[in-house]
Amino acid sequence: MTISYSDSFSMLMLRWRGSLWKAVLKDLIIFYIFYYIIMAFQWYLLDEKQKEYFTGWIKWCEYGASYIPLSFLLGFFVAVIVARWWEQFNWISWPDKMMMTLAVCLPGEENMPVRQTIARWSSLQAAIAWSGISVRTLKRFPTENHLVDSGLMTKEEYDLYTGTEAPHGKWFLPTIWILNLIKATYKQGRIDSVQLDIIMRQVYAYRDGFAMLFVYDWIKIPLVYTQVVAIATYGYFVICVIGRQPKLDIKSMEKEISILFPIFTTFQMCFYLGWLKVGQFLMNPFGEDDDDFELNYILDRNTFIAHMIASDVADQCPKVAEETVKH
Amino acid sequence: MTISYSDSFSMLMLRWRGSLWKAVLKDLIIFYIFYYIIMAFQWYLLDEKQKEYFTGWIKWCEYGASYIPLSFLLGFFVAVIVARWWEQFNWISWPDKMMMTLAVCLPGEENMPVRQTIARWSSLQAAIAWSGISVRTLKRFPTENHLVDSGLMTKEEYDLYTGTEAPHGKWFLPTIWILNLIKATYKQGRIDSVQLDIIMRQVYAYRDGFAMLFVYDWIKIPLVYTQVVAIATYGYFVICVIGRQPKLDIKSMEKEISILFPIFTTFQMCFYLGWLKVGQFLMNPFGEDDDDFELNYILDRNTFIAHMIASDVADQCPKVAEETVKH
Amino acid sequence: MTISYSDSFSMLMLRWRGSLWKAVLKDLIIFYIFYYIIMAFQWYLLDEKQKEYFTGWIKWCEYGASYIPLSFLLGFFVAVIVARWWEQFNWISWPDKMMMTLAVCLPGEENMPVRQTIARWSSLQAAIAWSGISVRTLKRFPTENHLVDSGLMTKEEYDLYTGTEAPHGKWFLPTIWILNLIKATYKQGRIDSVQLDIIMRQVYAYRDGFAMLFVYDWIKIPLVYTQVVAIATYGYFVICVIGRQPKLDIKSMEKEISILFPIFTTFQMCFYLGWLKVGQFLMNPFGEDDDDFELNYILDRNTFIAHMIASDVADQCPKVAEETVKH
Amino acid sequence: MTISYSDSFSMLMLRWRGSLWKAVLKDLIIFYIFYYIIMAFQWYLLDEKQKEYFTGWIKWCEYGASYIPLSFLLGFFVAVIVARWWEQFNWISWPDKMMMTLAVCLPGEENMPVRQTIARWSSLQAAIAWSGISVRTLKRFPTENHLVDSGLMTKEEYDLYTGTEAPHGKWFLPTIWILNLIKATYKQGRIDSVQLDIIMRQVYAYRDGFAMLFVYDWIKIPLVYTQVVAIATYGYFVICVIGRQPKLDIKSMEKEISILFPIFTTFQMCFYLGWLKVGQFLMNPFGEDDDDFELNYILDRNTFIAHMIASDVADQCPKVAEETVKH
Amino acid sequence: MTISYSDSFSMLMLRWRGSLWKAVLKDLIIFYIFYYIIMAFQWYLLDEKQKEYFTGWIKWCEYGASYIPLSFLLGFFVAVIVARWWEQFNWISWPDKMMMTLAVCLPGEENMPVRQTIARWSSLQAAIAWSGISVRTLKRFPTENHLVDSGLMTKEEYDLYTGTEAPHGKWFLPTIWILNLIKATYKQGRIDSVQLDIIMRQVYAYRDGFAMLFVYDWIKIPLVYTQVVAIATYGYFVICVIGRQPKLDIKSMEKEISILFPIFTTFQMCFYLGWLKVGQFLMNPFGEDDDDFELNYILDRNTFIAHMIASDVADQCPKVAEETVKH
Repeated sequence: MTISYSDSFSMLMLRWRGSLWKAVLKDLIIFYIFYYIIMAFQWYLLDEKQKEYFTGWIKWCEYGASYIPLSFLLGFFVAVIVARWWEQFNWISWPDKMMMTLAVCLPGEENMPVRQTIARWSSLQAAIAWSGISVRTLKRFPTENHLVDSGLMTKEEYDLYTGTEAPHGKWFLPTIWILNLIKATYKQGRIDSVQLDIIMRQVYAYRDGFAMLFVYDWIKIPLVYTQVVAIATYGYFVICVIGRQPKLDIKSMEKEISILFPIFTTFQMCFYLGWLKVGQFLMNPFGEDDDDFELNYILDRNTFIAHMIASDVADQCPKVAEETVKH
Repeated sequence: MTISYSDSFSMLMLRWRGSLWKAVLKDLIIFYIFYYIIMAFQWYLLDEKQKEYFTGWIKWCEYGASYIPLSFLLGFFVAVIVARWWEQFNWISWPDKMMMTLAVCLPGEENMPVRQTIARWSSLQAAIAWSGISVRTLKRFPTENHLVDSGLMTKEEYDLYTGTEAPHGKWFLPTIWILNLIKATYKQGRIDSVQLDIIMRQVYAYRDGFAMLFVYDWIKIPLVYTQVVAIATYGYFVICVIGRQPKLDIKSMEKEISILFPIFTTFQMCFYLGWLKVGQFLMNPFGEDDDDFELNYILDRNTFIAHMIASDVADQCPKVAEETVKH
Repeated sequence: MTISYSDSFSMLMLRWRGSLWKAVLKDLIIFYIFYYIIMAFQWYLLDEKQKEYFTGWIKWCEYGASYIPLSFLLGFFVAVIVARWWEQFNWISWPDKMMMTLAVCLPGEENMPVRQTIARWSSLQAAIAWSGISVRTLKRFPTENHLVDSGLMTKEEYDLYTGTEAPHGKWFLPTIWILNLIKATYKQGRIDSVQLDIIMRQVYAYRDGFAMLFVYDWIKIPLVYTQVVAIATYGYFVICVIGRQPKLDIKSMEKEISILFPIFTTFQMCFYLGWLKVGQFLMNPFGEDDDDFELNYILDRNTFIAHMIASDVADQCPKVAEETVKH
Repeated sequence: MTISYSDSFSMLMLRWRGSLWKAVLKDLIIFYIFYYIIMAFQWYLLDEKQKEYFTGWIKWCEYGASYIPLSFLLGFFVAVIVARWWEQFNWISWPDKMMMTLAVCLPGEENMPVRQTIARWSSLQAAIAWSGISVRTLKRFPTENHLVDSGLMTKEEYDLYTGTEAPHGKWFLPTIWILNLIKATYKQGRIDSVQLDIIMRQVYAYRDGFAMLFVYDWIKIPLVYTQVVAIATYGYFVICVIGRQPKLDIKSMEKEISILFPIFTTFQMCFYLGWLKVGQFLMNPFGEDDDDFELNYILDRNTFIAHMIASDVADQCPKVAEETVKH
Repeated sequence: MTISYSDSFSMLMLRWRGSLWKAVLKDLIIFYIFYYIIMAFQWYLLDEKQKEYFTGWIKWCEYGASYIPLSFLLGFFVAVIVARWWEQFNWISWPDKMMMTLAVCLPGEENMPVRQTIARWSSLQAAIAWSGISVRTLKRFPTENHLVDSGLMTKEEYDLYTGTEAPHGKWFLPTIWILNLIKATYKQGRIDSVQLDIIMRQVYAYRDGFAMLFVYDWIKIPLVYTQVVAIATYGYFVICVIGRQPKLDIKSMEKEISILFPIFTTFQMCFYLGWLKVGQFLMNPFGEDDDDFELNYILDRNTFIAHMIASDVADQCPKVAEETVKH
C-alpha cells in the first residue's frame, strides 16, 4: 500500500515500513561483509611492504570513486521516474463521474437496471484491465472464472467474452458493452444526443485511464538508462569496498588516524542507495512493494461507490426549502 | 495563513512570521549546544597529545562532510515539492463559475430557492471534503452536528446524510444532491439539455477539486525520498559538530588561525536547513504552519460569494444605453 | 515595460534599460566601499605580524565562501520563478475572442448597443481586477470615481457597484453584468442555447485570467525560499569582502602576486547578483520595474480593440467573388 | 521493439538486448585498442627520459579531462530527449475511440459497410503517414502498390489517391475520405449535428497524432546541441586515451602504483557513453533500434481492433437483467 | 531552414550547415589571435624575472576561471530556451483542420466560393500576422500592396483593410472576415448552431496561433538573464586568454611540460560556446539563422493545402463497397 504519513517529520525518520532503512539494509550488510573480509585480509595476511602497496590501491580506488557523478545521474533519473509515477497514479480510473452522469441523464427507478449493470461493468472493466498491469490484481483474478465467481460477470457475459476472438487483446469489451447499452437507451429516446455526448465523454474518460496504464506498462524507461544508473551506483560502492579501507601501513598511520568503521560510506549508502531505491520502487508502481498503489483496494472502493451511486443515492435529494440564510 | 509579501525585497529579510529565522532557530540552538560541549571537552579535558589525535578526527569529519551532495538532493527534492504544492493550491475549488452559470441558466426570482440551496450545498460540500484533508477545517467541523449548527446543513439533510451507509466514504453526497436538484429542473423543462451540459461541466469542475485534494492527501511523496533528504541534511550537520571544531593542538594553531564561532556552519545551516524547511512546510500545505493555505478563510469567502451570486446579484444588470463612446 | 529586444546579440550587452549593469550597480558600489576600507585598514594600520594574522582570516573566508552552492540555489530558484512569471503573463485576459464571438452570435446594427456595452464592461472588469494586483493600474484608478471619469463606468453603474455590499470582494461584478446581459438576449430568443454555451465559454475564459492573477498575487513563492536564496547570495559577497582581499604580509607576497582590484569578484557579482535580480524582478511582474508587464498599455489596447470589434468591424466582410485562383 | 522488462531489478543488469553492454561495446573496444597501442609505444619505444616527458603529457591530459562538465551536459540533454521521446509515443494514434464512437452513432447491420470502410481507411491513413516517419513502415509499404496488395486500399482508391496532385503532400487524404463519408451519412439524416460533432472530434484526435509525428520528425533537437554533447563525450574519452595511461617513468612508479588496465575509465565509459546512447536511441524513436517503437506491430493491432469494433462487437451487448448484487 | 537530420550519428558531426563548427568558428579565431599575441609578448618581450611575474598572473587567472559555474548557468538557461522554442513552433497555425471542417459543414459545389475565399483569407491572415514576427516573411510582404500582388488579397479587400483605422493593430481583420462569412452562411440556414460551434472552434484554434506568436515575440526572456549568461560565457574565455598561457619561466618549465596550443581551451570553447549558441539561435526562432523555422515555406504549403481542401478534394470520397476483408 502507498504509505500515507501524517506523523511529525522527525517521527517519520523512525518508520520501518516503506522506509529507507528497510530499503538499504540488505545491501548494507553485504557491503559490510566484503569490507571486513578485505580489512581482515589486509590486517592479518599482509606484511608491512604489502600493506604499503595495498595503500596505493586504496588511494587509487578513492580517487577513482570521485570520477562517478552519482548525484547528477540519480537526480535526473529519479526526477523522470517520480514524474512518471505520479502521472500513472493520475491515470487510475474512477467511475464516480460516469455514474453521476448516468444518474442525471438516466434517472428514476425505471433506469436502475441500466445504471446497475453499467456500474458492474465498470468494475468488470477495471478488474480485467488492471489484471494486465498489476500483479496483485492478477493474483485476485487469475482467470475469467474468478470474475464470474466474484459476481462481476454473469455466466452469459462470460460466454460472450470468452467467445470473442481477439489475438490482439479484448480488455475493452466491457466498455463496448457500456456504450452499446447507452446506445440502446438513446434509440429508445430516453436520452437525446446532447446527453449521449455528455455520457460518452465520461465513459471515454473512464476508458482512457486503462488504455494509458497499458501504455505506461508497455513503454518503460529505456533499459539502458536504468542500467546506467544502477551500474554507476553499485559500481561506486564496489569501488568503496577497497577505497574506503583504513590505510594500515606505518607511514599512513602516522600521518592520519585510522577508523575501522566506514561511517561516512555507510552514510553515503543510506542516501545514494536510498535515492536509487526511490527510483526502483516507483518504476513499477503496481507491484507488491510497500509503496505501491493498491489497485485491489481501489477496485473494491469503486465497485461499492459505483453501485451506491447507481442505486441508493441515484435520486437522493433533500427537499428544497425557501432559503433564509442571511450573512 | 499563506504569507503575502509586498514589502521591499530587503525588508523581507527581517520578517519573522513564516521566515527562515523562525524555521531554523531551534535546530541552530541544538547545534550550538553540542558544538560547544565538544569544544569545552577538547579544550579542558584533552592534553596536547590527545588534542593532536582529536585534530585527526576533525580533519576526517571535514573530509567526510564533503561526500554529501546536499545541494543536489535538496534542489531536486524541493523542485518536486514546490510543484506539488502549487498544483494542490490550484485544485482548491471555487464555486464562482458554478453559481454564475446557475444565475444564467436558472434566472429570476422563481429559481432563487434552487440557486440558494445549491450555494449552501456547495459550501457544505467544501466543509465535508476539506475536513478530510485539513486539520484546521476538521477542528472547525469535528462532527456533522457542527455542520448543522453552522447553518450549512439542515436537520433533514443531516438525517439523510448520516442515514446513508458508505464504508468507503460519502463525502460526495452534496454533489449528488446538487446534480439531482438540477436534474429536477431539467425534468420540469426549466433548462434544456445543452444548458444541463453547461451546468454539469461546472459542477464537475467544482467536484474535481475535492477529489484531487483527497488524492494528493493520500498519495504523498514516497517516504524513502523524504527520509533520504532528511537523513542527508541532518547527518551533514551532525558530522559538522565535530568537523567544524577549531583545531586546538599546537601544530595546527601555528599553521592556521582558530576561530571559536562556527560562522560558516551557521550560515550553511541557514540555507541548507532553510531549504529543507521549505520542503517540509510545503509538503503538507493544509496544516497549521504559517505558510499553509487557510481553507477556513476560503470556505467563509466561498460561502459568502456563492450566496451573493445566488441571491443579490443573480439578476443584477445595469440598463444598456445607446453607447456613444468614440475613440 | 517589458523590454523587447531585437538588436544583435552583442549589442544587447551594452543596453542599460532593464539590464544587468543597472541591476547590480548599486550593490557593486557598496561592495567596493567596504572592500577598500578593509584594504586600507590592512595596509596602513596593521604591522607585519598582524598582517600575517589577517592573512589567516582571508584564507579562512576564502575557504568558507566555497561552502556556498550558489549556482544550484540560484539555478533551481530562478527556474521556478521564470516558470511562474511566464504563466502569469499567459493569464492576462484579452477580450478579442469574446468580442468576436459576440459579433458572430449577436450580429447587426440592432445588437450593437449590447456589444458595445459588453466591450466597455470588459475594460471595466480589467480595470477593477488589475487595480488589485498592479501598482500602476491602481495609480491610474485609485477610486471608483476615476473609473467613471475615464468613461469606463456610467453613473448608474457606479451606484449599482458601490451599492453592492461585499466584504469578500466584488471585483467580478462586471462579469456578472455581462452574463446577465447575454441572459437577457437569450430570453428574447436572439441566441439559442448552443450559442449561449459558445459565448459563456469565452466570457469564462476572460474571467479566469483575472481570478488566476489574484491567486498568483495572493500565493507567492514561500518566504523562506526567497530568504534562503537572498541570504546565501548576499552572505557570499559579505564573506568575499574579506576573503578576496590581497594578502599583504611578506611571506604571501613572495609566494604569489597581489592584485589590488577584485576583478573576479566583480565578475562574480555581475552574474550571481544578476541571476538573483532576474528572480527578484520576475517575482513581482506587475510592479514598476523596467521588465514588468505594462497592464495599463494592455488595458488601453483592449479597450480600443474591444470597441472596434463591437462596432466598426463587427459585420465587416468583403464580398465573396467566384474564386479563380489556380495553382 | 521497445524492451518491456518485468524481471527483477538485478536480473535486468544481465540483459543483452537493448542493454548498456550492447550499446557501449563497440566504442569500448576501439578505446582499448588505442589505449594499448599507446601503452605499448610508451613501454617499448621510450627511454627513461622520454617516459618522464610523456608522464608530463599524461598529467596534462588528466587535468584537461576535468575541464569537461560531462554530467551536466548529458543530464540536461537527456532530460530534453526523454521528454520528447515520451511525447512522441503519446502522439501515436489509436483508432479505438473513433471506431467505438462510430459504433454508437452509426449502429446496426445497415451501417456496417460505412464502419468497415472507415476502419480500413484508418489503417490506410496510419500506413501512409507512418511510412513518412518510420523506416520500418516504409520498408513494409515502399510504394502505394503495396498498400493495394496488403488490402488496405482498393484499386479505385489507388487511382483516386495517385490521381490527386499535391506537391506539398497528401498524406491526409484518407482522413478527408473518412470525413466525407461521415458527411454523407449526415446528409442522409442518419446522424444529427451533435453526433457529427462527437464523431469529428474523434477523427481529428486520430488525425492530430499523425500531424504531430510529422512535426516531431521535421523539427529535431537543433543540430548544434546534439553536436555539443557528442563532441564533449567522445572528446573526453579521446583525452582519456592518454590521460589515463599508467605513468611508467621510475619516479612516478615509486610514488604510486601502476595499474595496467584502465578500470575506472572503462567504468566511466559504461555510464557516460551509456547515458549518451540513451539520448541517441531515443532521439529517433521510430528507427530500427532495439528500443524503438514498433509501428508495424501497432499498425497490425490497430487494423485488427478497428475491424473488430466495426464488425463483430459493434453491437455486442449482454442482456440487462434486473440487477441483484448487494454488498 | 530548420535542419532535418537523418544521417547516422557519427556523420552528423561532420555537417557544416547549422553546425557547431560554423557557430563557434569566428569566436575561436578571435580567441587564437589574442592568445598568440599575448604568448608572443610573453616569449619575446619579457625577461626571466618578468616571466616569473607573468606566471603569477597566469595562475591567478587560472584560479579565477574556476569561480565561474558555466555549466549550471548554461544548463538552466538553455533548458528554458529550448522549451520556449518548441512551444513557439507548436503555436504555428495550420489551416488543415479548419478547411476540413468547412468541407464537412459547408459541402458541395454551391459552397465552394465560400470555402475558397476562407482558404485565401487564412493565408492572408498568416501572411499579415507572420510579417509582424518574422524577418523573412516581412521581406516577402513589406507592404500590403505585395499581398495584393501575390493574389492573397483582392483590391476591394485592400481598400477595406487599409481603410480600417486601428492604432493598436488590425492583424486579426482576416479572421473577422472569416467569422462574418460563416455568420452569413448561418443566417442563410446553411449550417445550424452546433456546426457554427464546430467551425468557430477551429477558426479560433487557427487564430490563437498568431496571437500567441505575437506574445512570444513581445515578451522575451528578460534581458538580464540573457546578459548574465553571455557575460559569464565570454568573460570565462577572456580570462582564459591569460589563464591558459603556457608558463614560460624556467622554474615552471622544469616542473611541467609547456604546450603551445591551447587544445583543452579550444575544446571547451567548442562546447561551452556551442551550448550558448544553441540558446542564441533558438531565442529568436523566426529569424534568418540556419536553424530557424521557415515560415515562408509553411505559408506556401498552407496556401496550397487550404486551397486543395477547399476545392479539389472537398467532396472527394471513394465509393463504399460492401466490405469483405476478413482477418
